[in-house]
Amino acid sequence: MTKAPTPTRHIISINDLTNKEIETIFEVAQGFLQELADENVPYRIGRSTDLASKSILASLFYEPSTRTRLSFESAMLRLGGANITSADPAVSSAAKGESLADTIRVIANYADIVVIRHPRDGAARLAAEYSQIPVINGGDGAHEHPTQTLCDLFTLKSKKKSLKNMKVAISGDLKGSRTIHSFVYALARFGATIDPLPAPGMELPAHVDRRLREEFHCRMVSKDPGQLPGGAIDALYVTADQPHQLSLIPDPEIDYGFLVQKKTDAVYVTRFQKERWTEKERPYPKIDAKFLDEAKYSEASVMHPLPRVNELDISFDSDRRAIYFQQAAYGVPIRMALISLMLQLHKNKSLQKFAGGFARPDHPVYAQPIDTGLHCDNPNCITADPAERRYAANKFYVIEDNSPRRCMLRCVYCEKDVGEGTDAQFVVADTTRKTFSPGLATLAGASADKLKHVVIYPTEAEALAAGFAPREGGKKARAS
Amino acid sequence: MTKAPTPTRHIISINDLTNKEIETIFEVAQGFLQELADENVPYRIGRSTDLASKSILASLFYEPSTRTRLSFESAMLRLGGANITSADPAVSSAAKGESLADTIRVIANYADIVVIRHPRDGAARLAAEYSQIPVINGGDGAHEHPTQTLCDLFTLKSKKKSLKNMKVAISGDLKGSRTIHSFVYALARFGATIDPLPAPGMELPAHVDRRLREEFHCRMVSKDPGQLPGGAIDALYVTADQPHQLSLIPDPEIDYGFLVQKKTDAVYVTRFQKERWTEKERPYPKIDAKFLDEAKYSEASVMHPLPRVNELDISFDSDRRAIYFQQAAYGVPIRMALISLMLQLHKNKSLQKFAGGFARPDHPVYAQPIDTGLHCDNPNCITADPAERRYAANKFYVIEDNSPRRCMLRCVYCEKDVGEGTDAQFVVADTTRKTFSPGLATLAGASADKLKHVVIYPTEAEALAAGFAPREGGKKARAS
Amino acid sequence: MTKAPTPTRHIISINDLTNKEIETIFEVAQGFLQELADENVPYRIGRSTDLASKSILASLFYEPSTRTRLSFESAMLRLGGANITSADPAVSSAAKGESLADTIRVIANYADIVVIRHPRDGAARLAAEYSQIPVINGGDGAHEHPTQTLCDLFTLKSKKKSLKNMKVAISGDLKGSRTIHSFVYALARFGATIDPLPAPGMELPAHVDRRLREEFHCRMVSKDPGQLPGGAIDALYVTADQPHQLSLIPDPEIDYGFLVQKKTDAVYVTRFQKERWTEKERPYPKIDAKFLDEAKYSEASVMHPLPRVNELDISFDSDRRAIYFQQAAYGVPIRMALISLMLQLHKNKSLQKFAGGFARPDHPVYAQPIDTGLHCDNPNCITADPAERRYAANKFYVIEDNSPRRCMLRCVYCEKDVGEGTDAQFVVADTTRKTFSPGLATLAGASADKLKHVVIYPTEAEALAAGFAPREGGKKARAS
Repeated sequence: MTKAPTPTRHIISINDLTNKEIETIFEVAQGFLQELADENVPYRIGRSTDLASKSILASLFYEPSTRTRLSFESAMLRLGGANITSADPAVSSAAKGESLADTIRVIANYADIVVIRHPRDGAARLAAEYSQIPVINGGDGAHEHPTQTLCDLFTLKSKKKSLKNMKVAISGDLKGSRTIHSFVYALARFGATIDPLPAPGMELPAHVDRRLREEFHCRMVSKDPGQLPGGAIDALYVTADQPHQLSLIPDPEIDYGFLVQKKTDAVYVTRFQKERWTEKERPYPKIDAKFLDEAKYSEASVMHPLPRVNELDISFDSDRRAIYFQQAAYGVPIRMALISLMLQLHKNKSLQKFAGGFARPDHPVYAQPIDTGLHCDNPNCITADPAERRYAANKFYVIEDNSPRRCMLRCVYCEKDVGEGTDAQFVVADTTRKTFSPGLATLAGASADKLKHVVIYPTEAEALAAGFAPREGGKKARAS
Repeated sequence: MTKAPTPTRHIISINDLTNKEIETIFEVAQGFLQELADENVPYRIGRSTDLASKSILASLFYEPSTRTRLSFESAMLRLGGANITSADPAVSSAAKGESLADTIRVIANYADIVVIRHPRDGAARLAAEYSQIPVINGGDGAHEHPTQTLCDLFTLKSKKKSLKNMKVAISGDLKGSRTIHSFVYALARFGATIDPLPAPGMELPAHVDRRLREEFHCRMVSKDPGQLPGGAIDALYVTADQPHQLSLIPDPEIDYGFLVQKKTDAVYVTRFQKERWTEKERPYPKIDAKFLDEAKYSEASVMHPLPRVNELDISFDSDRRAIYFQQAAYGVPIRMALISLMLQLHKNKSLQKFAGGFARPDHPVYAQPIDTGLHCDNPNCITADPAERRYAANKFYVIEDNSPRRCMLRCVYCEKDVGEGTDAQFVVADTTRKTFSPGLATLAGASADKLKHVVIYPTEAEALAAGFAPREGGKKARAS
Repeated sequence: MTKAPTPTRHIISINDLTNKEIETIFEVAQGFLQELADENVPYRIGRSTDLASKSILASLFYEPSTRTRLSFESAMLRLGGANITSADPAVSSAAKGESLADTIRVIANYADIVVIRHPRDGAARLAAEYSQIPVINGGDGAHEHPTQTLCDLFTLKSKKKSLKNMKVAISGDLKGSRTIHSFVYALARFGATIDPLPAPGMELPAHVDRRLREEFHCRMVSKDPGQLPGGAIDALYVTADQPHQLSLIPDPEIDYGFLVQKKTDAVYVTRFQKERWTEKERPYPKIDAKFLDEAKYSEASVMHPLPRVNELDISFDSDRRAIYFQQAAYGVPIRMALISLMLQLHKNKSLQKFAGGFARPDHPVYAQPIDTGLHCDNPNCITADPAERRYAANKFYVIEDNSPRRCMLRCVYCEKDVGEGTDAQFVVADTTRKTFSPGLATLAGASADKLKHVVIYPTEAEALAAGFAPREGGKKARAS
């Protein structure tokens, strides 16, 4: 009846894995390929082990999928394990009105590990909170798709020795594609340069851009070599060797010009994520042989998470740079590696540690019951679903910025910043003193213990209505 | 081409199992738990055997399911077996108009055992008539769901040593819930007291109530201690130690007052079975912490077959009395036990007998081709479905009551009593003499052979139309 | 990124298998039955091997199915292998707009062999062109269903020792039933006589009739013994012992009268394939005991590929001639045999050759990019689907007829003859000389190399528009 015991590990975001862990996954995947690859197709797993012969993977899919579900199931079979599958919400208990939290608590008794796909951002994190067994995010709304990113990075790495200083163009629906979001975090973390080529109005979401710059130390460098770095909207994300606190300010010691000039190592194409938009169609770039004829793409591997619709011309399929089906094939060894590590199936002791690892950013967490105080303002967050939010909380990372000193709140589920990172009209109430102060800056440096005695309200009016009084000088603080 | 050979055993109703057999299932399930439980969660199967390594379970689901289907499939995998699944009627041969009888005769060649779920009452019994392999009922309309009841009883037994004199409250949609119907029969058979707490208008169906009293020897005892036993509508079902023929008449030798006073041992909550009702919503009790704060529930285990919607407050989940997720977990060892016993996978000879066992009530059966004479009047019976009834018969148990001497007919498929147990205008025609008599009383004591020469008509007019004449004195008998 | 390497073998049409290979499949299937049959039911596989214990079958179903999918999955499990399944297009990547060619290229990395069902004629052939792993056609539109035919022939052979001179009546929707199309080719190839009993307006399609007569050497023999052979529409297809070039002309040396008189060995009933017609209902023959009471059917085995709706009376099920459920049961050993042969799982060297075998008719192939020249005029061909045709070509077998000398084109995907075998207004353009000639006769005897320099246009106007000039004398040739 209780929530999952703490040691159960879940992979919801690519940031749940350290760089070292990602490299461990790649080593294990490489080992499976060496041992089990098809004789004729070196990137395709063609044989099986019995490493997981006593284990069951549950696939819980609330959105359409072929590739993700079948590659997970193939991976489990190649490991010698077995699958149970719920792939159609219309013929499952969800049709009777069951919540995700209840479903996962039941399924956790039928399987040893579960992969979940859901239309809501943050659904996989909520599921993990209620699961006794490891949960893998197979794609949640427009949030993340971490195992796709593992395949993508592994594919890149198989082509180039290092991701460091690699230049990767990302094209299409950068806003709606969860695949892109996991991917850009990983690219930044491994020191790659990101060249965004969004469809009109489909730029990277503000909160992803902010995390790239503030958390993953990206600098914006204008693609126009005549301009100063950071001075242009049309810019690359480059990662400094050392973390920069003020990434927007040009660093005179480092010259990123060579990255602007450098040829592109990979072009990553994505489809229009129509299921995340109200419009059925929008202007959308089509990547074809002509586009890729530009000199800067002459050595670029062309990638696509698939499925594709029309955004990548099929006549390009026979080009030597097209590696998207190889990328899809890597889904099997990568997922074999991830599953076997999470289930602690390897005898090697250092590999067994993986299952106990946790790489979550250690920002302090503010939490309140779902009907108390401030709630996430992302309309597609799992906490915005009336049936599911009853099982969630108003739970936010407190993210601190040093110059100017300020705080913002990031939803623990969907990882969007509330109020887009501004503190808007928010007030912080102190449940001990029954007072409140304007703005979030008072949260800076707050201990976990202090956060327990805090309720954050979206407006003064709500704090007043809840019986709190303005703290002396509080109004002045805002006025100043 | 022939129907299943007689020795194939099917589990369609909880009453297809003797009490001893149910206890055998529990022993085998307990053995699996001891051998294979998760190290951290003693009620969860976490490892596998290879007992069923050559066997295939077919899941044939014509209604939504997550828990029942996946727990059956998990059970089969934990036994080392494998699964084939048809879970969506829209993508199966049913979409092309195939009947259940044809489907099961085909599937029987592809698997060793089959679990079926269907929206029609009695569908599983019809399927079993055409199956060469064992059929398990995974829920048929509003009729029964016997394997859920096995999990429920096993959960209760894990909490208390004996079911005897246990007091179990059942709440919600007692009419539409097939789970409840199987459950109350089992509770009565094991000597538990049933405390019905129906939603308004959702009382136990008349035929279930009748069977509890007449077949399973329940007595009605008023919950108001001031009233005489049996005198109230708001009453408990209690089971006498000895079978009582006249259970409605107070037995002065036994005082059931202690059961009225006794604290409730378990509260069993069910959801509104909206798929069985034309209304989308109805007034419905919500069981929450406040309700369970009553002193009489202080030691009550709270159960739910799941899925739940709103009828059981989620804030109660962390209460020590909430055992519904444990109850769900027991689905695996219980179903492992049932499957392994039905497939005769155990070496122990006494366990092998299970597969040949039959516990059906041995009422005589009246049977006629489906277009002849009286038919079942339950509009949701499988025999009311134009496509399926062609494969069925007008087949009824002849149930005899001794005081006053009368007979009634119970449909062999849906187990509802025709005419709600009255004989209405029915007449019994004798095919040898070409005459008919009013009422069903003439069926009392009829041999199987005599029943072969009988056709029952719903009215005199139909018997006349079929060429039968009133038997001399017959009319008088009714008039008297 | 490239298409499948040539040696991968696919089974798309029954004509992809030689007679000898079909007999090999039967021998292997018979071996599985001897080794693994159910003790009580000799035609039902009841146990398993571990022959395929490292292999995965992918089921890719874009149309409803129970029997075909589950019998393939059962076969794979009985071989010791495992399955991954995509059975509902609405919950797969197809819902996001992915093409079949892309899907198969991805799935080929997750499995070792794939079975595909699709509503479009020729879909399985297109899929095979893009697959690195063997593809089995599980039914494509109204084209073919070769594994059903293998079960059908195996069933017939289990009843009679030889198919030679056997007389098989085929009833119902001979036009829409892909099962019938594969079946009649096989019957003709094994020397059986075909007695068509079509529903009104549901005769064998013209291109199937033409192939029977021209490719499989069938002669039409009137069922009316008073008429000369070949003189009647209401005729049998009989196969001469020796190939006849001019099958429509009576051969005085052979008397087929005994076949007209001969009792029917099997009646093969099919349902109205409503999914291939715009009308919901049509007049349709019902085969029942009365029909089968005719003397000529007294020893006829009655077969049905199932599912049935109303076209075969259920009261006939208990007749000794009804063998349709046995026929369904053979789906397992037959598919076990086919899969194990295609995956080269047998140690016997002669059986290993199967995987490398190819039996396609070696007509020369004319091919052009999909937007160039003549295209297939079958509106249900996979090349008529705007999303899928981009991956296909205008690709036709050049079929030569000797008297009078003429050519026709048969679509490589759906195998329908363009223009119903006439050359209509077609012209053949020569890309070297920039000229064109009327009619297809100039293709007669053309080498593969010559065909590379040819474009065929549906009309002169289109050839002219494409910049070709009439060849001198070309117009005259047509006029003569």
